[in-house]
Amino acid sequence: MSAVTSPQPLDLSHHYSYASKNRNPSSVKSFYKYFAIPNIANFAGGLPHPSYFPYDTLEATVARPQRLQPSNKDDTKADRVVIPKEVQTPDLTRKIDLTTALQYGTAEGYPPIFSFLRQFVRDHLHPNVPYEGGPEIIMSCGNTDGFSKAVELFTNIWNPDRDWIQQREGVLCEEFTYMTAIQTIQPRGLNTVTVAVDGQGMLAYGKGGLKDVLENWDFRRGRRPHLMYTVTIGQNPTGGNLSIERRKEIYALCQKYDVIMVEDDPYWNLQFPSAYEKESRYRGASTEPTPYNRSYNAEGKSSGYAFLDSLLPSYLSIDTEGRVVRLDTFSKTIAPGSRLGWITAQPAVIERITRITEVTTQQPSGFVQSIIAQTIIGEQLKEKGALALMKQEVSSWRMDGWVRWLEGLRGGYERRMNDMCSVLEENKYLFSESPEKSSTVDHVNDWEVVDRVQMYDFVWPKGGMFAWVEIRLETHPLRTKYSERKLSKAFWIHLTKKPHLCLVAPGQIFAAGPKSAEKEHRYIRVAFAPMDPEDVSPFTRRLVEGFRSFWKRENLDGLDDDDETLAMQSMQLNSGINFVGPGC
Amino acid sequence: MSAVTSPQPLDLSHHYSYASKNRNPSSVKSFYKYFAIPNIANFAGGLPHPSYFPYDTLEATVARPQRLQPSNKDDTKADRVVIPKEVQTPDLTRKIDLTTALQYGTAEGYPPIFSFLRQFVRDHLHPNVPYEGGPEIIMSCGNTDGFSKAVELFTNIWNPDRDWIQQREGVLCEEFTYMTAIQTIQPRGLNTVTVAVDGQGMLAYGKGGLKDVLENWDFRRGRRPHLMYTVTIGQNPTGGNLSIERRKEIYALCQKYDVIMVEDDPYWNLQFPSAYEKESRYRGASTEPTPYNRSYNAEGKSSGYAFLDSLLPSYLSIDTEGRVVRLDTFSKTIAPGSRLGWITAQPAVIERITRITEVTTQQPSGFVQSIIAQTIIGEQLKEKGALALMKQEVSSWRMDGWVRWLEGLRGGYERRMNDMCSVLEENKYLFSESPEKSSTVDHVNDWEVVDRVQMYDFVWPKGGMFAWVEIRLETHPLRTKYSERKLSKAFWIHLTKKPHLCLVAPGQIFAAGPKSAEKEHRYIRVAFAPMDPEDVSPFTRRLVEGFRSFWKRENLDGLDDDDETLAMQSMQLNSGINFVGPGC
Repeated sequence: MSAVTSPQPLDLSHHYSYASKNRNPSSVKSFYKYFAIPNIANFAGGLPHPSYFPYDTLEATVARPQRLQPSNKDDTKADRVVIPKEVQTPDLTRKIDLTTALQYGTAEGYPPIFSFLRQFVRDHLHPNVPYEGGPEIIMSCGNTDGFSKAVELFTNIWNPDRDWIQQREGVLCEEFTYMTAIQTIQPRGLNTVTVAVDGQGMLAYGKGGLKDVLENWDFRRGRRPHLMYTVTIGQNPTGGNLSIERRKEIYALCQKYDVIMVEDDPYWNLQFPSAYEKESRYRGASTEPTPYNRSYNAEGKSSGYAFLDSLLPSYLSIDTEGRVVRLDTFSKTIAPGSRLGWITAQPAVIERITRITEVTTQQPSGFVQSIIAQTIIGEQLKEKGALALMKQEVSSWRMDGWVRWLEGLRGGYERRMNDMCSVLEENKYLFSESPEKSSTVDHVNDWEVVDRVQMYDFVWPKGGMFAWVEIRLETHPLRTKYSERKLSKAFWIHLTKKPHLCLVAPGQIFAAGPKSAEKEHRYIRVAFAPMDPEDVSPFTRRLVEGFRSFWKRENLDGLDDDDETLAMQSMQLNSGINFVGPGC
Repeated sequence: MSAVTSPQPLDLSHHYSYASKNRNPSSVKSFYKYFAIPNIANFAGGLPHPSYFPYDTLEATVARPQRLQPSNKDDTKADRVVIPKEVQTPDLTRKIDLTTALQYGTAEGYPPIFSFLRQFVRDHLHPNVPYEGGPEIIMSCGNTDGFSKAVELFTNIWNPDRDWIQQREGVLCEEFTYMTAIQTIQPRGLNTVTVAVDGQGMLAYGKGGLKDVLENWDFRRGRRPHLMYTVTIGQNPTGGNLSIERRKEIYALCQKYDVIMVEDDPYWNLQFPSAYEKESRYRGASTEPTPYNRSYNAEGKSSGYAFLDSLLPSYLSIDTEGRVVRLDTFSKTIAPGSRLGWITAQPAVIERITRITEVTTQQPSGFVQSIIAQTIIGEQLKEKGALALMKQEVSSWRMDGWVRWLEGLRGGYERRMNDMCSVLEENKYLFSESPEKSSTVDHVNDWEVVDRVQMYDFVWPKGGMFAWVEIRLETHPLRTKYSERKLSKAFWIHLTKKPHLCLVAPGQIFAAGPKSAEKEHRYIRVAFAPMDPEDVSPFTRRLVEGFRSFWKRENLDGLDDDDETLAMQSMQLNSGINFVGPGC
């Protein structure tokens, strides 16, 4: 795409909140020249003296990018990264030392990691952003922080005691989604407006789809929603990946109705091509065409890496107007406790988020910024016992290593997904022992007719860390005696009992609105990510055994204890609360 | 103080903002028991697998607490801290490892550092908080983050286009203060309400004092302010320490007018008893009674440390009603880039801030939380070259070492303060070469009458990192030809020129309101903290030489370049902006 024909990003300032419009612009650059006067005695900056930082070096033993094998056993080799007290270089993007990393810095981010990520984003992650000049980035303290800043920027608080209903703003989201995002919106008095989903993610058309919601907006609820929160890869909890075709449909609707799109994609590199294949093999057809081996950047610039080219691209790749704000994080690629990520959007939006950052988080911790900078772009020492500190054998991740690490991670999670889903796929049915207990008669393969009931269904997760399992409560023998909600609660408790001993996340904790609440009890989310690889199959077998034994129950005795109900309700209230993680 | 007679903290919920009232309470504890079921297969939590965190160990070479000598040369000995991949212990407050530190955690903070600080705060820092049960804490990402959460909790945004003026809230602060705090308030449409200060800090009584401001509040501006932002030790920029007597007066006014007090004390341990002594020695009398060698906790519980007992106590020590929210940070005691601190307040306030934290920063970075936890409370290895890694000689900071480190820091900054202020003290006057150029005739000491003009004045900073210098513009020979503002700008530029080469922070960047703006040009803030110790005296001599040569100027040629004016204006706009530090 040539620069000459690129469109300018839209002016989005009519979407900004009162406080965010009101922040003063910064033009400090003209002052920097005074800092640069040779031998100037600086009485102006109120900084602590760096000799009083108690750390002389910061070090880590760090995996090689090749540790995680896409198909074989992981290796355990490690290198050392060392961050010294001070490095003498005028190039701030190469100056990784404690004197700068632990001092006050710039809100955009620590220059070495900021400049690396800016290049990664513009040249490799999103090489085909259509608008003039391309996107900018700013570091965040992870995606929850990033989303809270986007919400601060784009929404005004609505207080029913002092504001008119016409002033009430709203946020669009998938009907089942990451509840911490919803908990960011709701205290501000905003409408949470759910859009129906299928196995891919948000629906553009059809009943409850985006068009339906926007076109038939009931203005008695407030303003038509102008902000969207969406998880498009390995959607949490449904595990769907949004196809490029669907993205184009949804983007066009957002253009038509002037909606800002916040794309939260912590699982972006965890896309599982084998899920399409396996699903097809088991079921004759996948829910979607298999994109395996497809190069998404075939028509535009390549990312430079076959792995990245094979991944479904971000909304940014079709964002002609600059209405996409993308959230990326190191939580799933390095570690959640990093609390480090970045926000990508058109420059004017990043400028506003910079103003917000300056008076809130200021900058992510220099400890994590410098350690990750040194891990990815610094020089590293091969670990050979304690003497490594003195032997300066240089290696490094660099861009190649970073992409290799992402690919390795994908492999590890993809194997767990396959192990879990194979067991789930092969055990959906309960084959009844006597004809009178069965409720459905159907064909299995082609070679036999037996009595069976389907206990659950699921779509193979095409990305992420979870499978989303629909409980077929209508096939349970006790369905005439108890409500589906009662059965669902009893089932959750049943699973926690011996010999099943399974803890699953109930659908309630992802239900973003009243429409989702109507069917929330029909779902559970099962995570394969946190399990040791050798546990996935046996644990999943325990889970399906829990299904079977529940379907064989003739009563719900011992499954309705108040404590347990309270526990489930507290899970519902508290996904992401107190224990701040994805959905738990 | 016995528990029986302690008052209950007040219910402050009438101060909460709309969004903060609206956050759902958390009661997740009842769910924890499911996690504790032996051998439970956890499909519920959506956490990454810890083997995919690329760090096997995290290490640092760390100063011993005795490194900084209150009076002698610092030593350079260092120990190693090592954070291993995994530690097996059921005690979460002792489990410092990467498997927990880099995983999702709790919003309150990483258990080892949280529990250490909670004990430090309750038993040592503030052993005499009067209300029942004492205060609670939560970790923050530094005091700017902490203040932004307090502002989110206690204020509602006011938008002139949709709200009544009666709804406009306001925040009280010192007339000159840390501008990032003001920049947190102003975009929300709040009134910034300045209170006059003297050498100690905020005035309770007299013109422009707190009583005057609150009693004579003009309701046409909005609600009477119900929130105060105050820096009470080493106030930024004035360097004052607020006495216990003044605190009692101000607290009583805040009780009367129902004001919440946010005490931001990053410089708390940097209190300089010698400043009172030196000031008295030079001037015959200090501006305040010398508190040197006083034990502030003599009437209550001791902190257990003579050093801590000798420090002016927090507002918390007189907070019978629970209306004080205190912000502490590791920025000045470990390093600014840590972005780690904590908030102390009555439990109900901490509970609300926990709800805010869960949907914004979630938790500070596990890298910094674990490194600081291991530094202070973990086992450490003495550094003896690279072999140290294998020799498990255990040492540690612990509570004693932590307090010793704080005392050492105080010593280092106190020496710099003394070096700077001695030079300032001894060079305030310009002794005129011929009688016709002098504007004032006065007595020096007692032994001689000479012609002299006082170029500047200052109060010795009793704490912190800065001296606040008043420029006596009225004594300048050119005062009849140019306005004071013009002279002040020219002086700032003059200082940056050879041979002076001094960069000082102009008063404008700390002027919080229109009353402060009237006199802002009469002040500069000079920081001694960032300088190497051997530079402080010679740099300060260059500064006073700059004063002298400016007072000898017969014109302002070359000092009114637009660029320079722009630079000063951008400093004014941008203290704390872009380059996020204290006032620069």
